[in-house]
Amino acid sequence: MGWQDYLDTNQTRFEQELLDFVAIPSVSAKPDHMGDVERAAEWVAARLRKAGIENTAVLPTTGHPAVYGDWLHAGPDKPTVLIYGHFDVQPAEPFDLWHSPPFQPEIREGRVWGRGASDDKGGMFIPILAAEALLATTGRLPVNVKFLFEGQEEIGSPDMPPFIEAEARRLSCDMIFSADGLQWTANEAQLVMGLKGLVGVELIVEGAQADQHSGLHGGGINNPLMALSQILASMKDAQTGRITIDGFYDDVVELTVEDKQEIARVPFDEAEYCAELGVPEAFGEAGYTVRERLWARPTLELNGLTGGYQGAGSKTVLPARASAKITCRLVANQRPERIAELIAAHVAAHTPPGVTARIEHLAGDADPFLVPRGHNATQAAGEVLREVYGAAPYITRVGGSIPIMTLFLRALGVHGVMFGFSIADENLHAPNEFFRLENFRRGQTAYCRLLERLGR
Amino acid sequence: MGWQDYLDTNQTRFEQELLDFVAIPSVSAKPDHMGDVERAAEWVAARLRKAGIENTAVLPTTGHPAVYGDWLHAGPDKPTVLIYGHFDVQPAEPFDLWHSPPFQPEIREGRVWGRGASDDKGGMFIPILAAEALLATTGRLPVNVKFLFEGQEEIGSPDMPPFIEAEARRLSCDMIFSADGLQWTANEAQLVMGLKGLVGVELIVEGAQADQHSGLHGGGINNPLMALSQILASMKDAQTGRITIDGFYDDVVELTVEDKQEIARVPFDEAEYCAELGVPEAFGEAGYTVRERLWARPTLELNGLTGGYQGAGSKTVLPARASAKITCRLVANQRPERIAELIAAHVAAHTPPGVTARIEHLAGDADPFLVPRGHNATQAAGEVLREVYGAAPYITRVGGSIPIMTLFLRALGVHGVMFGFSIADENLHAPNEFFRLENFRRGQTAYCRLLERLGR
Repeated sequence: MGWQDYLDTNQTRFEQELLDFVAIPSVSAKPDHMGDVERAAEWVAARLRKAGIENTAVLPTTGHPAVYGDWLHAGPDKPTVLIYGHFDVQPAEPFDLWHSPPFQPEIREGRVWGRGASDDKGGMFIPILAAEALLATTGRLPVNVKFLFEGQEEIGSPDMPPFIEAEARRLSCDMIFSADGLQWTANEAQLVMGLKGLVGVELIVEGAQADQHSGLHGGGINNPLMALSQILASMKDAQTGRITIDGFYDDVVELTVEDKQEIARVPFDEAEYCAELGVPEAFGEAGYTVRERLWARPTLELNGLTGGYQGAGSKTVLPARASAKITCRLVANQRPERIAELIAAHVAAHTPPGVTARIEHLAGDADPFLVPRGHNATQAAGEVLREVYGAAPYITRVGGSIPIMTLFLRALGVHGVMFGFSIADENLHAPNEFFRLENFRRGQTAYCRLLERLGR
Repeated sequence: MGWQDYLDTNQTRFEQELLDFVAIPSVSAKPDHMGDVERAAEWVAARLRKAGIENTAVLPTTGHPAVYGDWLHAGPDKPTVLIYGHFDVQPAEPFDLWHSPPFQPEIREGRVWGRGASDDKGGMFIPILAAEALLATTGRLPVNVKFLFEGQEEIGSPDMPPFIEAEARRLSCDMIFSADGLQWTANEAQLVMGLKGLVGVELIVEGAQADQHSGLHGGGINNPLMALSQILASMKDAQTGRITIDGFYDDVVELTVEDKQEIARVPFDEAEYCAELGVPEAFGEAGYTVRERLWARPTLELNGLTGGYQGAGSKTVLPARASAKITCRLVANQRPERIAELIAAHVAAHTPPGVTARIEHLAGDADPFLVPRGHNATQAAGEVLREVYGAAPYITRVGGSIPIMTLFLRALGVHGVMFGFSIADENLHAPNEFFRLENFRRGQTAYCRLLERLGR
C-alpha cells in the first residue's frame, strides 16, 4: 500500500482524532485553561509517538510548554526539515453565537466545526499524519524531520524567543515549513513571499505643567494638542500619502517589474474592497497599486490619539499633554531600531515653539521578512502546490507580521515557508470556526509529496 | 452724619452680617443645598428691605430663584442703574484643606474666611450697604436703582437667559454695574473694557465602518487619526501661531495705538508668566504681545483629541473614527455662528481623500463684549476708582467669557461695567476663600461715590 492509499484508508480515523484534539480547550490566553494547554501538549507528544516520531518531549518554557519530536534517519546527505505549528487556540467567547459548542466539535457539510479546527489544530495535525503515512508504508521518511509545536501563538509567543535561542542546537535545520498558514481560496493556492516588520512608538507632547483655562491662557502659550497634530501631519503628505520622514524609504527594497507582475496576477477588486470596508475610496502612497501598498510598501499608521477633554459637550481647557501611538509596518530591508530613530529625529526637527516632544519606543519590534527569489524550499513548496491544486499558486505577501518567522530567521538563519491549508474565511478568531475536510486531506497529500520531493 | 460716617460707624455690624450671609451654604451645584440657595435668596431680600429698598421679591426661575428690589424715586431726569451680583457659591470640597470650616466663617488678619466671602457674597453685599448708608443719611438715593441678584452663577446661569428676557421690562435701565468682579491687586484698581466671546465645535473624521487591522489594511485606506491631524494642523501656522482659516480675522476690531498703550501700561512679566505655567516659552499670534493676545486677539484652541487605542503599550489598529473638540475665543465684532461656518468650510476644503469629516456646533456660544470708548458709565466708574485708590485704574480686558454681561447687552441693550472689589488671589474657587475687609469697606465708599456722581 502506498502512502496515498494509507491516507485514504485511515481518513475517518484521522477525522475522529482531530475531533478529540479540538475538544481540548487549550485557550492560552486564559489562566484557568493552563491545564488544558498542558493536556493538548501531551496529546500532541503522544500522537507524534504513535506516528513513529522519536525523541518526543513536552519541553518547558517560561510559559506554556512546547512539543518536540524528530525522525533523523534519512542520512546526512538529506536535508533536515523543521515543521512548525501551534496547539493553543483563541478564546471561544461569545459562546452563544456558536451553532455547536466550540469544544464539542462536530462534522457538518464536510467541515469540522470547533475552536481551533482551522487555527491551527487541523493545520498542525496534517504533517504528523503525512509522516505517519510515509513511515507506515515505506518504513522511513525521505528527509530528516523535526517537529516543533508551540502552545502560546495566540498570545504572541512571549516565551518563544528565549526558548528558541536556548534550543537552537536541537532545532537546527536546513528548511522550515510552517503548518500555520493560509491558502488563497478553498481551491486556489498561494505562496507567501513576504511579511512586513513592525515598529511602534508613542509621541508625547507637553506644554504647561497642568491643564489651564483656555480663556485665561489661550493665545499666551502653545497648545500640546495642536502641536501634536502639527507634528503628526508633518509625517505624511495629505494628498500623495507619502511618508515625509527623512530617510524613511532609504532601506526599502523596491518592487521589481517581476514583483509587480506577480502581485498584479492576484485577483483584486478595488471597488469591492472599498465597499466592504465602507470607505469612499482607497488611499495610500501615490505611484503604487492598492495591493502593492498593502503587501510591499512600508506604512505609518496612527493607532491612537489622546489629549484633553474627551467627554460629552465642551470643556474650555487648554490641556497640558497630548500623545499619539504610531506603528510602522516595515518591508525589507528596513530595521525597526533605525525607523524609530528617524521618527525621533523628525519629531525633534518639527516640534513647534512652546512645547516639548519626545518619542518612546514601544515593545513589539519585528523585522520584515522577504523570501529570496530562488529560495530552494519555497520553490519546492510552489511545485507541490501546483501539483495538488492543478494550477500555479499565486505569489503573495502579507501586510501583517508573523513574529515566529522572523524569530526563526534570526535564531536559526533559515527563511521559513508558509505551508498551511486553512482559508481566511474559516472564522479563525471568531465564533463558528471551521476547517474544510477537503483541504485537511489535500494538505496530507501535499506534505507527503513535499517531503518526497525534498528527499530526491 | 454723612454716608461715610454711617459706613464707619456701622462697619462692625456689616462684618457680622456678612458672616451670617456666608454661613448659609448656598451651593448651587448640589441638589441637597437647594433649600440653602432659597434661604440665601430670602436673606438677601430681607437685607434689601432693611436697607430701605422697595418692591423686593424672590423671583422664581426655572431653576434657582433670583432676588429683585428697587428704589425709583430719584426722578425721571436721573438715570436708572441696575446693580448685579450672585448669592450662590462654589462647592467647598475638599473640606479637609480648609483652615477653618467653609460655612463657619471667621475673621482673621483683616479678612473674612469662608466659601463665598469673596465670590460673591462680600461683593454683592457692598452695594446694598452703600444704598443703606445713602438712604439712612440723606433719605434718598441720587439715582434710580434696581438690584438683581441671581442664585445660579456658579453653575453657568442656565435659567437666566429666559428669565432676563421675560423680565426685561422690570429690569430696563440706563446703566448696569456688576458687583461680581475683580480689582487688579489689593491696592490697584482696574477697569475691564473687554470680554471674549466663545464658540465651540467638534470635528469628527470617519474612515472605514469599523476598526481595521493595521497590517491588513494599512496602506490601503486612509487613517482618520492622520486625516484629523492634517485638518487640525491646517488651521494654524505652526511657527507664527496665526489662524489660517479663511475669513477668521475679517470681523476683528483691530487694536488701536491707544488700546496697545493701555495694555502695555499694565504690569506683566513674561518670564514669570512662563515659569508659573511651566512652559519653555510663550507662544501665540506673531505681531502681538502676550497680553495683547490674551486679552484682545481671537484664539483657536484644541480642548480634546480622541481616537483609536488609548491604553498602555501598543495596539495595531487602524481606527474607524477620530474627533477633536475645538473652542475659539472671539473678540469684537466676531460672531459665534459665523466662525462655526468658517470652520466648517475650512474642514470641507481641507479633508484629505478617503475619509469623511464633519463639524458639530456645540452649545455655549457667547458674543464678545467690548465697552465702547467714551461709554458714560465706564468713565464714571473709572473716575470713582481713581478717587478711592488714589491712582488711575489699569485699563484691562479678560480672555474669558462672562455670559451674564453679554446676556444683559443682548436683552437690555446696555453694556455693563464690572465694579467689584475682589482680588484674583482670594482663592475664589478653591479652599480657604477669603475677602479683604479693607476692600469690603473701600467698595462701600466707591459705590456711594459712584451713585452720587451718576446723580449729578
